[in-house]
Amino acid sequence: MYGEPVTQLIEALSRLPGIGGKSAQRLAFHIIRMPKDRAENLSRAIKTAVDNVRYCSTCCNLTDTDPCGICTSGKRDTQLIMVVEDPRDMAAYERTHEYHGLYHVLHGVLSPMNGVGPSDLKIGELLKRIQANSVAEVITATNPTVEGEATAMYISKLLKPLGIKVTRIAHGVPVGGDLEYVDEVTLTRALEGRVEI
Amino acid sequence: MYGEPVTQLIEALSRLPGIGGKSAQRLAFHIIRMPKDRAENLSRAIKTAVDNVRYCSTCCNLTDTDPCGICTSGKRDTQLIMVVEDPRDMAAYERTHEYHGLYHVLHGVLSPMNGVGPSDLKIGELLKRIQANSVAEVITATNPTVEGEATAMYISKLLKPLGIKVTRIAHGVPVGGDLEYVDEVTLTRALEGRVEI
Repeated sequence: MYGEPVTQLIEALSRLPGIGGKSAQRLAFHIIRMPKDRAENLSRAIKTAVDNVRYCSTCCNLTDTDPCGICTSGKRDTQLIMVVEDPRDMAAYERTHEYHGLYHVLHGVLSPMNGVGPSDLKIGELLKRIQANSVAEVITATNPTVEGEATAMYISKLLKPLGIKVTRIAHGVPVGGDLEYVDEVTLTRALEGRVEI
Repeated sequence: MYGEPVTQLIEALSRLPGIGGKSAQRLAFHIIRMPKDRAENLSRAIKTAVDNVRYCSTCCNLTDTDPCGICTSGKRDTQLIMVVEDPRDMAAYERTHEYHGLYHVLHGVLSPMNGVGPSDLKIGELLKRIQANSVAEVITATNPTVEGEATAMYISKLLKPLGIKVTRIAHGVPVGGDLEYVDEVTLTRALEGRVEI
């Protein structure tokens, strides 16, 4: 109806997550009406990212240089490894500017329901990395979900026999939150984890 | 944090309408993890669409051949022109398979509040087209909004002195709808537009 190029663009866009047929159509028209240099910039950004981005061979984070900037930085505490599910979780901790150790990205969590086992995650890489380097502490910062907790437990059981200290980030009420709206499990965890002031 | 190519992809994606920072990040990671040929296909589709799609010089629809497939089709009633706001509205009518005339895409509606006047729309092109060809009827199929109605009225006032029949698509209760949930204005319009059965 609009010609083949538009139809193909709509189809390619509608394959992205969270973008249905109508949104894909809206986006396609927007792209076509965009200033040409901006549209070409988007096209190029996709190609460049796909061509140049790979996993860091040390921490499995996404990077365009291998090893990545964090692994090669001289300013990080190499004795400390924070295990996260996803590069975005790593980014979230980087934004705090309060963590100065290294990371290890699992790219998922254990989820027997979805057929995700230890071999589907970067757990083998973590083990090799710990055996090859001197690591004092592994902080499990997987998400506070059932699967995230199970993955943290699994890693803990795997690493403790190697004499590594394994810790878990604290659960509790979020700063700035309202107790009234916090769920019961979180409230219980906050109570259990109380500290003297 | 993820390297320059990822950051640039996130930035390019976040400029699209309805896609905020978080969505752009999610989409970028999805694109990077996509099979390489599918990601390259998306990149190429954007470039091809931008390079090849332009406005049909007759009806102002988006097309990769000029004039577009509908304008050059021998099977359409050239005496009939349906005026729509947007290529998507044209596509909606094409899906009915019940309209066999031609189209004219305005690419917007009159909206003094947003500074959109007649010269910002393809109204001049419509006028030229009607003067150059034999046209019996112009159907105004702009959206049933205040601006859509005003645009239809404007076109009607412009074309009537030329002896062209100008019509407006009917307003009424949508088929399959429930009267209880139909707004008052639509109910009133449905009553006014009642036909004998």
